[in-house]
Amino acid sequence: MKPAMRTITVNLGERSYPIHVGENNLAELGEAMRGAKFGPRVAIVADANVADLYLKPVEGSLRRAGFACEVIVLPAGEEHKNVDSLTAIYDRLIAGRLERGSALVALGGGVVGDVTGFAAATYLRGIAYVQVPTTLLAQVDSSVGGKTAVNHREGKNLIGAFHQPRLVWIDVAALRSLPKRELVAGLAEVIKYGVIADGELFCRLEETLDELLQVNSEILAEVVAASCAIKAGVVEQDERESDVRAVLNFGHTVGHALEAVTRYEKFLHGEAVAIGMVQAAAISVAEGVCDRPSFERIRRLVARAGLPVDLPADVELAELVRHMEVDKKSAAGKIKFVLCEGIGRTRFHALAPSEIAARLAEKAN
Amino acid sequence: MKPAMRTITVNLGERSYPIHVGENNLAELGEAMRGAKFGPRVAIVADANVADLYLKPVEGSLRRAGFACEVIVLPAGEEHKNVDSLTAIYDRLIAGRLERGSALVALGGGVVGDVTGFAAATYLRGIAYVQVPTTLLAQVDSSVGGKTAVNHREGKNLIGAFHQPRLVWIDVAALRSLPKRELVAGLAEVIKYGVIADGELFCRLEETLDELLQVNSEILAEVVAASCAIKAGVVEQDERESDVRAVLNFGHTVGHALEAVTRYEKFLHGEAVAIGMVQAAAISVAEGVCDRPSFERIRRLVARAGLPVDLPADVELAELVRHMEVDKKSAAGKIKFVLCEGIGRTRFHALAPSEIAARLAEKAN
Repeated sequence: MKPAMRTITVNLGERSYPIHVGENNLAELGEAMRGAKFGPRVAIVADANVADLYLKPVEGSLRRAGFACEVIVLPAGEEHKNVDSLTAIYDRLIAGRLERGSALVALGGGVVGDVTGFAAATYLRGIAYVQVPTTLLAQVDSSVGGKTAVNHREGKNLIGAFHQPRLVWIDVAALRSLPKRELVAGLAEVIKYGVIADGELFCRLEETLDELLQVNSEILAEVVAASCAIKAGVVEQDERESDVRAVLNFGHTVGHALEAVTRYEKFLHGEAVAIGMVQAAAISVAEGVCDRPSFERIRRLVARAGLPVDLPADVELAELVRHMEVDKKSAAGKIKFVLCEGIGRTRFHALAPSEIAARLAEKAN
Repeated sequence: MKPAMRTITVNLGERSYPIHVGENNLAELGEAMRGAKFGPRVAIVADANVADLYLKPVEGSLRRAGFACEVIVLPAGEEHKNVDSLTAIYDRLIAGRLERGSALVALGGGVVGDVTGFAAATYLRGIAYVQVPTTLLAQVDSSVGGKTAVNHREGKNLIGAFHQPRLVWIDVAALRSLPKRELVAGLAEVIKYGVIADGELFCRLEETLDELLQVNSEILAEVVAASCAIKAGVVEQDERESDVRAVLNFGHTVGHALEAVTRYEKFLHGEAVAIGMVQAAAISVAEGVCDRPSFERIRRLVARAGLPVDLPADVELAELVRHMEVDKKSAAGKIKFVLCEGIGRTRFHALAPSEIAARLAEKAN
């Protein structure tokens, strides 16, 4: 039996949009898009791996709904999240005569979602797009909230725009084809939502972790929807991250720097965030804002999920600092560091990268 | 005696900003920017020609006001309004550690303004920028309203974003260094404002054209401010060009296609728009919405300014059509063509490019 479709709305005035979470629903996308006011031409962007698996049902569904489809297949991998891929998309959109009323459909993980969203933000000064995320990370995080970007060789996501999708269409059945390591990495962001905003979700993850790791659709749909609802609530309060949206960066200050230091080769994003969360929780204890039992629960759940918890011994703290400094969240040399106050609440702390490193070093001693 | 500073506000809620029109006011920019909430680092972007003339006063003013300045000099020319220039700017912004609170200063004509504005729209998902336009075209048109873009080899401004500046700082004295041909080309857009929205401005242009051509600062400041006020009013009604903002494209459908057909070599933008306006007025007469005497006044003022009024004999209408079709304003194959109803009023007419060409051909016979 299919789990019931869950719908969460991101309320942003004229930029509001629904997130639909269902199972085996890709063939219904065309019908859903026909209900929206899109022009007759759309373009589907996917990477080569995802295209093999899911292009056929999505394209078929769009064609049956009457859309003329351009299909743009990008090479797979984070190294293609750059201006070259963007240029390739622009060329195809122009050749295919996509118009202001046209929509792009981002089918795949975070890389495809971010690049496609940025192309939509900037083609003809902005057209519509639809997110069809096929990884857990994309389903609970990158497909919601309108952050779009490409990487620069000096750092991730340095070039981008805020541009909300018109629709997010999630099929949890797609997670069955996801490599286990990527599923687990996505769980790091789910755990993050529990820590920053929802003690009940955190308890539920402690209870159901084994089923989640076995790709139980019913429970996946439940926690994906719960995660999206938390993200939607935060984005509604602060669409462009001038303030509270930064709570979503819990674990990410150290996580991003760690990814950069290890040249994006050693850790998946979620794995680096897992370490970053445990370190941020440890710093929260050291700063006296988090109790030790909560820290232990966080550390234990992350470890049980099969995620790393410690900084690798060979990482140089000085190098971590350098990467935090080019992070775009810095302002006047300080970073708005997210601490947890137990499970379900956070607070900000302005810390210089060097202070963060000092705390990490203390902890290591 | 300096003419009094004129200030026009573009009212767009939290994106509102002032346009200051003055004479010899570049050295006061730093002071004005210190009053706004910018971070301590700014970057000035200029092309090589403008940098020679005006970088020193602007940079000096910013430094005196306490800003740390990166200076980015681009090669001059529309052919550099592309992704490469954008990439060069990003590289310098990252190397210079510009932060989310930093601002870019676009010093120059429309090319620098559009590229810099787009860089600001997309660096770290959007930072502030200030327009300091030094050509008449940029002062009355491109610096106001938040349209930013770069060109694609298939068409102008196909890649871009809507991103409003925080401040527009106009020095009409800069127009004294402008080549006569560019000054005259800029007048085409000023005439356009009269035709589409302001019969009084049109009369004033008929009266003062000779002084304008002699770069009379007092009168320039007056008509620049009047033009900016009209544009501000239109942008306030329809920031993202979903509707009425398209009136600003009067003369531009044919003008853009003409520029493209002649490979941007034969005509300056304003010259092509001048021809486009006279042709659009002729089509308006043919469609029965404009009286012949108004058409004659438009044609006469354009010609008196030293601007071209006729399509060159060697332009192929079929080629014009092809270029109108890739124009980003097209929707379902039709263009929202702007007709004038006499002087000071417009109306839209949905026309296929082929219908426009047929009208132009009739006229030519």
